[in-house]
Amino acid sequence: MTTHHFFPTHYHVTLGSHAPVLYIADGDTVITTTVDAHGKDATGQKITSGPNPQTGPFFVNGAMPGDTLAVHFDSILPNRTWGWTRDTLATNVVDPDYVRTFPPREIADWYVDVERQIAKLVSPPRGLEQFSVPLSPMLGCFGVAPAEGQAISTMTSAEHGGNMDYNGFVQGVTAYFPVFAPGALLCVGDGHAVQGDGEIIGTGIEISMDVQFTVRVRKGKTIHTPRGENAEFIFTAGNARPLDQALQIATTEMHRWLMSDYGLDTTGASLLLGQCVRYAVGNVFDPAYTMVCKMPKRFLP
Amino acid sequence: MTTHHFFPTHYHVTLGSHAPVLYIADGDTVITTTVDAHGKDATGQKITSGPNPQTGPFFVNGAMPGDTLAVHFDSILPNRTWGWTRDTLATNVVDPDYVRTFPPREIADWYVDVERQIAKLVSPPRGLEQFSVPLSPMLGCFGVAPAEGQAISTMTSAEHGGNMDYNGFVQGVTAYFPVFAPGALLCVGDGHAVQGDGEIIGTGIEISMDVQFTVRVRKGKTIHTPRGENAEFIFTAGNARPLDQALQIATTEMHRWLMSDYGLDTTGASLLLGQCVRYAVGNVFDPAYTMVCKMPKRFLP
Amino acid sequence: MTTHHFFPTHYHVTLGSHAPVLYIADGDTVITTTVDAHGKDATGQKITSGPNPQTGPFFVNGAMPGDTLAVHFDSILPNRTWGWTRDTLATNVVDPDYVRTFPPREIADWYVDVERQIAKLVSPPRGLEQFSVPLSPMLGCFGVAPAEGQAISTMTSAEHGGNMDYNGFVQGVTAYFPVFAPGALLCVGDGHAVQGDGEIIGTGIEISMDVQFTVRVRKGKTIHTPRGENAEFIFTAGNARPLDQALQIATTEMHRWLMSDYGLDTTGASLLLGQCVRYAVGNVFDPAYTMVCKMPKRFLP
Amino acid sequence: MTTHHFFPTHYHVTLGSHAPVLYIADGDTVITTTVDAHGKDATGQKITSGPNPQTGPFFVNGAMPGDTLAVHFDSILPNRTWGWTRDTLATNVVDPDYVRTFPPREIADWYVDVERQIAKLVSPPRGLEQFSVPLSPMLGCFGVAPAEGQAISTMTSAEHGGNMDYNGFVQGVTAYFPVFAPGALLCVGDGHAVQGDGEIIGTGIEISMDVQFTVRVRKGKTIHTPRGENAEFIFTAGNARPLDQALQIATTEMHRWLMSDYGLDTTGASLLLGQCVRYAVGNVFDPAYTMVCKMPKRFLP
Repeated sequence: MTTHHFFPTHYHVTLGSHAPVLYIADGDTVITTTVDAHGKDATGQKITSGPNPQTGPFFVNGAMPGDTLAVHFDSILPNRTWGWTRDTLATNVVDPDYVRTFPPREIADWYVDVERQIAKLVSPPRGLEQFSVPLSPMLGCFGVAPAEGQAISTMTSAEHGGNMDYNGFVQGVTAYFPVFAPGALLCVGDGHAVQGDGEIIGTGIEISMDVQFTVRVRKGKTIHTPRGENAEFIFTAGNARPLDQALQIATTEMHRWLMSDYGLDTTGASLLLGQCVRYAVGNVFDPAYTMVCKMPKRFLP
Repeated sequence: MTTHHFFPTHYHVTLGSHAPVLYIADGDTVITTTVDAHGKDATGQKITSGPNPQTGPFFVNGAMPGDTLAVHFDSILPNRTWGWTRDTLATNVVDPDYVRTFPPREIADWYVDVERQIAKLVSPPRGLEQFSVPLSPMLGCFGVAPAEGQAISTMTSAEHGGNMDYNGFVQGVTAYFPVFAPGALLCVGDGHAVQGDGEIIGTGIEISMDVQFTVRVRKGKTIHTPRGENAEFIFTAGNARPLDQALQIATTEMHRWLMSDYGLDTTGASLLLGQCVRYAVGNVFDPAYTMVCKMPKRFLP
Repeated sequence: MTTHHFFPTHYHVTLGSHAPVLYIADGDTVITTTVDAHGKDATGQKITSGPNPQTGPFFVNGAMPGDTLAVHFDSILPNRTWGWTRDTLATNVVDPDYVRTFPPREIADWYVDVERQIAKLVSPPRGLEQFSVPLSPMLGCFGVAPAEGQAISTMTSAEHGGNMDYNGFVQGVTAYFPVFAPGALLCVGDGHAVQGDGEIIGTGIEISMDVQFTVRVRKGKTIHTPRGENAEFIFTAGNARPLDQALQIATTEMHRWLMSDYGLDTTGASLLLGQCVRYAVGNVFDPAYTMVCKMPKRFLP
Repeated sequence: MTTHHFFPTHYHVTLGSHAPVLYIADGDTVITTTVDAHGKDATGQKITSGPNPQTGPFFVNGAMPGDTLAVHFDSILPNRTWGWTRDTLATNVVDPDYVRTFPPREIADWYVDVERQIAKLVSPPRGLEQFSVPLSPMLGCFGVAPAEGQAISTMTSAEHGGNMDYNGFVQGVTAYFPVFAPGALLCVGDGHAVQGDGEIIGTGIEISMDVQFTVRVRKGKTIHTPRGENAEFIFTAGNARPLDQALQIATTEMHRWLMSDYGLDTTGASLLLGQCVRYAVGNVFDPAYTMVCKMPKRFLP
């Protein structure tokens, strides 16, 4: 169990089988940084191009196609004091006719106060002068190399993870990915100081981060789409459009999980989900939407 | 402010401009009962036909098209000790190919223990022998008469409410409906002792209820789709397919609400929603799906 | 076989169990008129309110729930010389961001020359000065009373027909409807002198019509959604959102049809459809979209 | 204008920036072959792995990002006498509940008679003993390297083309692609002897092909999604899910085309499309669906 301090020197805007920046072992911990969605670092310098430049890939020794990679987020912490968002609802989250009422889209700047754990608008519009929002730092885009030698833009997401923009991927959470390429080739990026459900203005509060994570390989454990776990829930993430299909993918994967790991049959897993399932909307902005299917641990057999 | 005890003698399977069963005033309270989705009452007798037979309609004096009807649920309480659910995931909430693995669908019976506030399966499958779920009694289908003299099946939902199957419609909540017909013509029915998000097995724990509600008319206040309020959130409900469109409707209505009642402009309402919005999946089973857009009250200006 | 000349005196904006305007027999023919989508008649007078006012309902003696009503359109002919359309693409048929480029929507007037069988813009914009389009008169909204005593707005469509806005419903076509109410209660309206696929500007060339149709009852023949037939194709219409679901409904019904009437099994009907099916987009504008699944008659066993 | 005879020695299952197999000039013609979707060649040998192995990429000298590549299909001809299809409707093109009635899926073999221009089932099920279908050879999957160094699976499609499975891509058609990478990097594959609309059984009649095409570079002409042209229509292809979004992409691109190349303004392009547009369903089976928006040339200014 080694702890690696990794200082990135270049970034990727696809998740794919790029040359590893570091080889790490099952159980190792990495301490590193991520730039924001536009490629700006802790000092505010634009050091690379977006969208969502990724730190990595990290080659996890022993991880092979068919295995599962567990990534525990030990810490996700903004490393500067300002972030930015868009300032208008995305056109795809409102009635199509309502778009006619929208002003041109601008960028809004935010103070990010890590000590007080809040963010505030630098130039609040009327009515939001007193508004502040508690921080809940998360990673919007991270994942592994996809199958068949694909390289997929960090604009979008799929079975390999990617730009899921789910505000539940905070520190303390373990994310699970299907391994499609030798070494899994984990990348991380796109930090948000906080984000509402759905990323409906097209951004969270975009910011650079200090990130620490620990990886584990689950040999021979095959999953179909990203999964995760926190103190209260196990969960699955479906990445697709429309939201209906994202929900279908997440629900199917949760149903499989309840059968494979908790001893339930088709009916038992259905009955349990039917009365206990919770859904969370990851994003409804990116090319693929993300729906998260959550099962409270306290109801698990 | 009168309290009416109303004992239904017939039920409706559409929401429409049916003959009122009772005329009530702004501020009045009604204490009544609902049968379950199959038309079975507190004694277990099937006294009417489904789907989702409605008690009502209640004519609210003074409510006119263009007004808003507020319905506060004072109490929603199961009035018998058993409920039922389906036992297999709905075919539309899983990957289409996964449907091939499904056994024939059956009905499952549940003990509903109102005193201990839990429900348990009568014949639990393997692994669920110890499983119980806390009650959270709700109404799945209720609403007002729709516009233009329509009569719409209680299978589905739209701007007038109907079969939204949102597990947030519990006691203590106030629901708001656009008024489309004189008197609003409120109906209530389809109680669930508890229901997971999405109603993904096609039912909650279906049960008959004792219901008490209080109505208020907001003269001249026009809304476009059902809204609601509880201690923590204001919320809007979009009823449509796909889920994307339900979300668009709900988000648009919330954005309008923030502007009309909280003094925000287009940008301000967008910035606030962007980092604070929460979504809840009502149902993803009925002909129209329901997505709920929630804004925490603590962030409102 | 009687031929009825029916002169409407009132119209309906829902399809439902309204009082019949005429009782007709299996095999009878009706000659009548329809007003345009805004309620304007052959003289251009607005004599009733929209949307899509319906002539009828016609009670077909002997038609009972579970039967099928066949409606053959003997003739659909514009009975005035001008029509109107909207002049901008519907906001839901383009990329959401593209809506920002749209000017305010206006109404455009068209000359409808029945003799020369063409329509031309009254005030053509730059580049369309020479543009004319051949007439192909059709009915956009027609159908029968829906199930369970529902009354459904003529804005939308479902299993009972309604506002399908499919440009294939022209003279010479036979439409088939499931019968849900005694007498079927057929209504007709919403004539278009011509319409592109999808009704993507929200209208065809809206016009009043002289209509002649002949009805037949298929006793004991049960169908699930509208069907139709012309010289070249049998076809089915799915009415739902998203378009994917409309396509699922239409395809399922065609697959059933091939099995029930043409002696094919599940595999045979699949193999035939797989290489021979054609789809047509009815509308992608109304609350429910319409997708048409077509099977060329020449390939039928 | 050189004619190249290219004999492939390896194939790709992603469209991406792979090493070119041949450098060709603007105006050059290539005569080559494609294997079927499973990697079987003219002799029936499986010489590579699927899905949809691609011949290429061909580097077109001078083609640069921002240009358009025109690919004219001079000839697409099956080069063997048998093909194969699946034998059951795809589960995503029918009502989800209807999937329960489906038998296990098998492969069906077909005789492909290029001389008589028909295909027949080798072992026809009951009722299809006499069934034959005229050939209409097409390419299901072809396109250029996508943007940002992506490599995208030949299972799916996007702005760069890919697995569109549109039965209109036959010989005589010119396809247009946005160029995202130097040389465009054109690949071709996935021949179908014939295919119904939508590829609703998940395949056309899959077969290896002799293909001849000629390329042209349109310098400085930027398009957003594949376009095409045949004797009767200009058309655009939207690749996305749901079908609604595919239609939005295709319609937006056609509207842009009418404005940029035919002198129409927003209103003029809308009015023309409104009454003249035709849609064709490419595929409703692959991860991205394809909708084609067609404008008859005879109506163009």
